[in-house]
Amino acid sequence: MTTKSEFVLTLACPNRPGIVAAVANHLLTHDGDIRDAQQFDDAETGRFFMRVVFTSTSHIDIVRTDLTEVATLFAMKWQLNERTRRRRVLLLVSKFDHCLLDLLYRWRMNELNMEPVGIVSNHPRDTYAHWDLGDIPFHHLPVTPGTKLEQETELWRLIRDSGTELVVLARYMQVLSDGIVAKLAGRCINIHHSFLPSFKGGSPYAQAHSRGVKLIGATAHYVTGDLDEGPIIDQEVRRIDHRHSIAEMQAMGREVERQVLLRAVRMHLEDRIFIDGNKTVVFS
Amino acid sequence: MTTKSEFVLTLACPNRPGIVAAVANHLLTHDGDIRDAQQFDDAETGRFFMRVVFTSTSHIDIVRTDLTEVATLFAMKWQLNERTRRRRVLLLVSKFDHCLLDLLYRWRMNELNMEPVGIVSNHPRDTYAHWDLGDIPFHHLPVTPGTKLEQETELWRLIRDSGTELVVLARYMQVLSDGIVAKLAGRCINIHHSFLPSFKGGSPYAQAHSRGVKLIGATAHYVTGDLDEGPIIDQEVRRIDHRHSIAEMQAMGREVERQVLLRAVRMHLEDRIFIDGNKTVVFS
Amino acid sequence: MTTKSEFVLTLACPNRPGIVAAVANHLLTHDGDIRDAQQFDDAETGRFFMRVVFTSTSHIDIVRTDLTEVATLFAMKWQLNERTRRRRVLLLVSKFDHCLLDLLYRWRMNELNMEPVGIVSNHPRDTYAHWDLGDIPFHHLPVTPGTKLEQETELWRLIRDSGTELVVLARYMQVLSDGIVAKLAGRCINIHHSFLPSFKGGSPYAQAHSRGVKLIGATAHYVTGDLDEGPIIDQEVRRIDHRHSIAEMQAMGREVERQVLLRAVRMHLEDRIFIDGNKTVVFS
Amino acid sequence: MTTKSEFVLTLACPNRPGIVAAVANHLLTHDGDIRDAQQFDDAETGRFFMRVVFTSTSHIDIVRTDLTEVATLFAMKWQLNERTRRRRVLLLVSKFDHCLLDLLYRWRMNELNMEPVGIVSNHPRDTYAHWDLGDIPFHHLPVTPGTKLEQETELWRLIRDSGTELVVLARYMQVLSDGIVAKLAGRCINIHHSFLPSFKGGSPYAQAHSRGVKLIGATAHYVTGDLDEGPIIDQEVRRIDHRHSIAEMQAMGREVERQVLLRAVRMHLEDRIFIDGNKTVVFS
Repeated sequence: MTTKSEFVLTLACPNRPGIVAAVANHLLTHDGDIRDAQQFDDAETGRFFMRVVFTSTSHIDIVRTDLTEVATLFAMKWQLNERTRRRRVLLLVSKFDHCLLDLLYRWRMNELNMEPVGIVSNHPRDTYAHWDLGDIPFHHLPVTPGTKLEQETELWRLIRDSGTELVVLARYMQVLSDGIVAKLAGRCINIHHSFLPSFKGGSPYAQAHSRGVKLIGATAHYVTGDLDEGPIIDQEVRRIDHRHSIAEMQAMGREVERQVLLRAVRMHLEDRIFIDGNKTVVFS
Repeated sequence: MTTKSEFVLTLACPNRPGIVAAVANHLLTHDGDIRDAQQFDDAETGRFFMRVVFTSTSHIDIVRTDLTEVATLFAMKWQLNERTRRRRVLLLVSKFDHCLLDLLYRWRMNELNMEPVGIVSNHPRDTYAHWDLGDIPFHHLPVTPGTKLEQETELWRLIRDSGTELVVLARYMQVLSDGIVAKLAGRCINIHHSFLPSFKGGSPYAQAHSRGVKLIGATAHYVTGDLDEGPIIDQEVRRIDHRHSIAEMQAMGREVERQVLLRAVRMHLEDRIFIDGNKTVVFS
Repeated sequence: MTTKSEFVLTLACPNRPGIVAAVANHLLTHDGDIRDAQQFDDAETGRFFMRVVFTSTSHIDIVRTDLTEVATLFAMKWQLNERTRRRRVLLLVSKFDHCLLDLLYRWRMNELNMEPVGIVSNHPRDTYAHWDLGDIPFHHLPVTPGTKLEQETELWRLIRDSGTELVVLARYMQVLSDGIVAKLAGRCINIHHSFLPSFKGGSPYAQAHSRGVKLIGATAHYVTGDLDEGPIIDQEVRRIDHRHSIAEMQAMGREVERQVLLRAVRMHLEDRIFIDGNKTVVFS
Repeated sequence: MTTKSEFVLTLACPNRPGIVAAVANHLLTHDGDIRDAQQFDDAETGRFFMRVVFTSTSHIDIVRTDLTEVATLFAMKWQLNERTRRRRVLLLVSKFDHCLLDLLYRWRMNELNMEPVGIVSNHPRDTYAHWDLGDIPFHHLPVTPGTKLEQETELWRLIRDSGTELVVLARYMQVLSDGIVAKLAGRCINIHHSFLPSFKGGSPYAQAHSRGVKLIGATAHYVTGDLDEGPIIDQEVRRIDHRHSIAEMQAMGREVERQVLLRAVRMHLEDRIFIDGNKTVVFS
């Protein structure tokens, strides 16, 4: 085979000399040309993280098989993906649809390397009547305290059956319960409408208004069992002043939210994020 | 008298129709030419805030006397200053001197309309041996738990005797006690080395590092009896990532701290800040 | 009549004492409560600019009639609008639709006080097949060098017949000729995809890539006969580095373009912009 | 020898497979532990750039000798430095001293890994009377059109005799002539007080004011024979509006200038910058 594919190798392991050489030598046996490589040693945890983009004429299965040996040697947690492969993404949304629409727009513009396998909302389809959601399956999963278990069971079934690799909470205003969160560790991204750890919980803009802060923000993070405490992927802020009402802060916030969520989802889809304890390593 | 002086009038009062007209008419009787005016109605509290810059050939005492009538009529809390008058400022500092030095540099460059009446530190003079503090009186006021009362009594004496109008805590790492804070209400500015309300209290950069945030910041605020809870004047952030150690975050933070403190002090010296409950109105 | 309407008064005139008092007194006779006021004296040109938001129980026609006297006295160029009145806006677009879609999204979210009276493109309707353009009339006006005169004549007819008050060039990639530009003075906003005055003319991202700049940007400006030289309304930048290809710069640029154009259009719709020679005064 | 030193290896060469493996293998023979590595393939020029930080117990001379073979094999242009080695820096300044003082402050705070070997000014020493320049030799080299050749000859003698490795034009307001510029290729950094390529040449703030831009900026670049056209290292901007006079823009600009120059000098001192034609590759 003479066509070259582009691959992304990501790995994490205890740090020790020789990792880079071992990986580079291995790739060279596959005629691999390293196009980009980034690494990070976390001196506090002793963990080593690496992302390598390379081209090769070998088939991904062959590269993968051969990598197993070196991976075992260094106790690596690793992944190898073809760069063009589109991840299967499930989008969850509630009433506010600005994040959802922005993600779909980027997808249509070929700015996001994903395949939306479904949209799930606790509101009915006609909430989004103005928007062309295309052929993406829409699932209305209403939820009440009494039906939460059933709703999440159904949600999990959807995730499983659709082969979902990433769940995006695009302003989905329901708290997922521990059971489903545990199944989605490291592959469920939420956008919180405040500059965490400030203003956790509900109504962050009202909290910000009341405290009189001069910057408001948004935070994208992986979802964990600890509400609003998961590993932070990205954050951004906007300047406000005394004249901004809560409603105006919400409108400005929407802009920040969609910008931050977009960046976080893009980084995830490009295999640029590693979870390092309660933090993230992001190779931008 | 034919020379024109420039004045700054600031006022706050319950909102009702006619305030602007009353003020404008009054100034016109003094041949006042309004150069700049900003106002804000706080719909939540019903308070009206206004800052007017005007030129006039009248003497400040005459304008002031005449304004008393209209001020009484509208129950105004007000101030009238000549724009060029330099406020008397006392600078408090501890080991980290970057904020102090930046304020002194700006003062020498005529960027800050102040008269430094003294520098107070809990560290000795030779901590700052490298810097030319000029003729500004330096006061070494060491403090221990057992001598805090005496130290603050001496500090208060300095403030009073020097005619200090504004106290700036330029990374002064001692918590002022309630007694002296009460005497300095609305005229004591602190720089906190975090993006409040995140990371209150000590070691905010260590807290930020531990939480894995992607932006760090600084907050300038008026000092109140509630530690780190006073009205926020200004805030700013810088982007960090996984590679930044606590020491690097502190170095970056110094840059943000001095920038934010400088802006806050400048706004205060230019009569641009109003305290509105636990918030500020800042006419920038 | 006891209901209060909110009005926006904007005025420009030669500066002299008494303007603020005259306006404030006049509004007071209409029971006007000034909610917000901003002003600016341009010391270089001697022009005075003012924007006043006030509530009144009077009818707009009565306020307007009464204002005529004071306006004449001070040689004012002035406008009085009800704050809620939606301006009639014509949107021009070419192949890139990100700015158009963002403006329509904001309009649907009630973030933009406008009435889109039509969309004009030199590309056919199905270029935008994915997007729900609603009931807004779509006009396909193709243009070639030989038909430009006819196309612009038709465009002008559309503007006139639809009562268009503002024309927005939302990445409309045709240069308007002087004849139609002259008719649209002060009411035609363009987004240029560079940080003007850098990289005027075509392919600004390619120019930026070639020069190796570290920030790219976008500029919203009023259209004049001098290409890319009209009064600048707003600008914004994004950081890039050596890794960004021209295509990636274009994608990042789209984000900046829509953000800057949105802000400029919003400022215009809220009567916050004054043209002052070849510059703008923007009361934000 | 059991103590470990930290080294920085930088290299540039034509891209081809095997570079990373060759370097990594070589370092491994010296017990090298790669702490950080960044690389970039310029697809347009076919050049490959790499910066590797590693620890090793070997002496630098031994590592260097051994690297020669691999460097020759790949036609590398390369450098190997001990990370702690302080570069010898000559600072040139004119009347405005804000950049000079900031660099000296950072140096004293151990934020800049340099050894200032001298300060050169075309103004006399007492221009900076307020500042403690410490033991750094000060050279007053006045310049007139008629004495420029002699002045630059003297400057070059200073550079040579002091073992200067980097020349920083910290708002040095004289244009260096081609002769001396040629000798300083890749090791002379200038700060230009505009957002290049806008407003080249003199009085950029006046130009910016006249054009009515909404952002002003500064640009750090390597000096070449083409005035204001050298490879850009870093840029930054600040928002202004209609109220800013030229003097205020200059004051704001000083803040940007010193921030951008500091970053550029720091990047250079840390071997993070590669010149790639008329652009730079900066590994931040």
